Amino acid sequence: MTDRRLLRGGTLVTLDGAAGYGLIPAGAVALEDGMIRWVGPEADLPDSYANWPATALEGRLVTPALIDCHTHLVYGGSRAAEFELRLTGTSYEEIARQGGGIAATVRATREASEADLIAQALPRLDAMLSEGVSMVEIKSGYGLDQDTELRMLRVARRLGQLRPVRIRTTFLGAHALPPGWTGTRAEYLRDICLPALRAAHAEGLVDAVDGFCEGIAFSASELAVVFAEARRLGLPVKLHAEQLSHQGGIALAADHGALSADHVEYATEDDARRMAKAGMVAVLLPGAFYALHETQAPPVAAFRAHGVPMALSTDANPGTSPLTSLLLAMNMGCTLFRLTPEEALRGVTTHAARALGLTDTGRLAPGLRADLCIWNTDHPAELSYRIGFNPLHTRIFGGSA
Amino acid sequence: MTDRRLLRGGTLVTLDGAAGYGLIPAGAVALEDGMIRWVGPEADLPDSYANWPATALEGRLVTPALIDCHTHLVYGGSRAAEFELRLTGTSYEEIARQGGGIAATVRATREASEADLIAQALPRLDAMLSEGVSMVEIKSGYGLDQDTELRMLRVARRLGQLRPVRIRTTFLGAHALPPGWTGTRAEYLRDICLPALRAAHAEGLVDAVDGFCEGIAFSASELAVVFAEARRLGLPVKLHAEQLSHQGGIALAADHGALSADHVEYATEDDARRMAKAGMVAVLLPGAFYALHETQAPPVAAFRAHGVPMALSTDANPGTSPLTSLLLAMNMGCTLFRLTPEEALRGVTTHAARALGLTDTGRLAPGLRADLCIWNTDHPAELSYRIGFNPLHTRIFGGSA
Ligand SMILES: [Zn+2]
Ligand SMILES: [Zn+2]
Repeated sequence: MTDRRLLRGGTLVTLDGAAGYGLIPAGAVALEDGMIRWVGPEADLPDSYANWPATALEGRLVTPALIDCHTHLVYGGSRAAEFELRLTGTSYEEIARQGGGIAATVRATREASEADLIAQALPRLDAMLSEGVSMVEIKSGYGLDQDTELRMLRVARRLGQLRPVRIRTTFLGAHALPPGWTGTRAEYLRDICLPALRAAHAEGLVDAVDGFCEGIAFSASELAVVFAEARRLGLPVKLHAEQLSHQGGIALAADHGALSADHVEYATEDDARRMAKAGMVAVLLPGAFYALHETQAPPVAAFRAHGVPMALSTDANPGTSPLTSLLLAMNMGCTLFRLTPEEALRGVTTHAARALGLTDTGRLAPGLRADLCIWNTDHPAELSYRIGFNPLHTRIFGGSA
Repeated sequence: MTDRRLLRGGTLVTLDGAAGYGLIPAGAVALEDGMIRWVGPEADLPDSYANWPATALEGRLVTPALIDCHTHLVYGGSRAAEFELRLTGTSYEEIARQGGGIAATVRATREASEADLIAQALPRLDAMLSEGVSMVEIKSGYGLDQDTELRMLRVARRLGQLRPVRIRTTFLGAHALPPGWTGTRAEYLRDICLPALRAAHAEGLVDAVDGFCEGIAFSASELAVVFAEARRLGLPVKLHAEQLSHQGGIALAADHGALSADHVEYATEDDARRMAKAGMVAVLLPGAFYALHETQAPPVAAFRAHGVPMALSTDANPGTSPLTSLLLAMNMGCTLFRLTPEEALRGVTTHAARALGLTDTGRLAPGLRADLCIWNTDHPAELSYRIGFNPLHTRIFGGSA
């Protein structure tokens, strides 16, 4: 039987166009079998939809559902005690000596069973869904051995069965060197990372491949072998690039037709030009900027000038961004990076979808998935303006509330 | 009939002592008729409590309920459109010329009925309660005429009847000059503010008196008449002081035995000494610091050195801090002001109670109100560490969940 539903009397934010909210004040949306069938002013509603079961929105705002396109949501343990140690005066060096930092998360993740990892990730995922998120990208990268990398990705896939949400998985074996690794970085990539990537891909666990290009992680030339392998497997790539310093990661990513470069605080005008040419998205992660007390904001003006789409994401991770609120990431994007509320909203919808290589969601338009949010407000800037407030009225995922 | 309840097997954070969490790992709390009767290690539980109806906490963290001691929660309208204008390049001056800024909120608040103000404040209050808040201070100050100032305070009182929460009201007639006021500041205080204060007090609407001491508002010497009137009426005082510049507000407040000085980014070592001597609390408001892109953090080291208790609050208001998450204020206190997680927790419990002149809540100790929170975690630093995540399991207010 056909599942049909009409939303009437909403303030629609379609984002369907190159710029502007695409606002339709007294609008209607017709949903059928999980898809958007019709969007427009209620006055123009064709007769054929007029008798569908209808919900009156009383002026409430309707937007595409939100998309969190860069997270490390699956991991073991907590770094709260370490957060406290730092604030009571223990140095990063001392914490590292005690086995803290990313090594602590790798240890806890390796020790955690699939069930443990699911139980720990679900409350974080639920927090996101409660704010209207319909799709979450989840990276591996806290295993740094084949078993754990694959377990993380299996857990990510499983989360998409346990909750009404789409999950996109990203293999991030090139996140860091494993604790205690005594070989070279190139040897780690060759002997551990690439075999794990091939095994994960063979199991159908990989939607994209990522790396961490930074002085404290891998160089662009080291990561080239990972991207080459991704290409061989037919997988799209993306990169943590130019976050703490300029390393040439964006140039590498652009050469490989990457979907996105993420963080990009130290990107240059040339990088913006490269990204525009390669059709890449700049994924901005203000939560990490905030938590790390960074001072160099990404070159938003250059991205605008060159037409690089900007996405916004939580970067949810236990070390540098224990942020699970995409609405707060929107506010931080506006407050810390001076994005406009419209850019913030596109950053968690249209442009976030594009950063994941998807075009079937992120706007309100006929033929797209019926993933949308109804909000207790009538002004789209409200979503970015408030801090730590969730005005969600209803989340609709694949047509179902 | 006596209402008795035993919480067993919790990780208690009593805060009952001058320093430290006051942690009791396998603890029990006995509640009777809305009060805490007994707190301690479960192994030491006296026989007389052993048969009370019990709830097993399975190791969950128990803290005093949270207290938001500085808010402007009641107001009309929204400033989201103005937030957007600023981010799309309109200057503060142009926005003011268009009637924006605080004048816009004053206009919208004057136009709002009591029912309107209640309907607009409730979602903000509910957001706070959902994070375990048991007491909220609410200021007037968007009326700047007698009718509206009193209406705001009546609404604040009413909120305390509509929801299980204690409300403390603060009269803030000395917040700004009314839009279009052509007299002097002294004339406004004499002709509008003080009569409104007397009328509000006569109606039983005032628990404390506040003012905004700043270059853009009132000077310390102008505010002295407000504090003198408060003293005459037997009302405690507090002050928005040294937020954007050093104005001598803390010295005035200390002279009047104020409960607290709030914001205090530009407080000096001498101010810290004065506050300690006067027994004042420093109420830190990192949400405004964040939203205004301030760079001068309050002198936390001086407050520590002189033993000035620090509270943390949202400053929830439509202009400079549209923040309604006290958990996020805790994280911001740690991230932006380098408070420790323990200081952050005391700042929203024990010290927040003290900033309101109350000693019957804010700790877990026999004889105090049974206002407490049960959290889905076992480490108190978790409450400050996560960003935009609410781990509340149960809020107990006056003994009732
Ligand atoms: Zn990341
Ligand atoms: Zn204030």
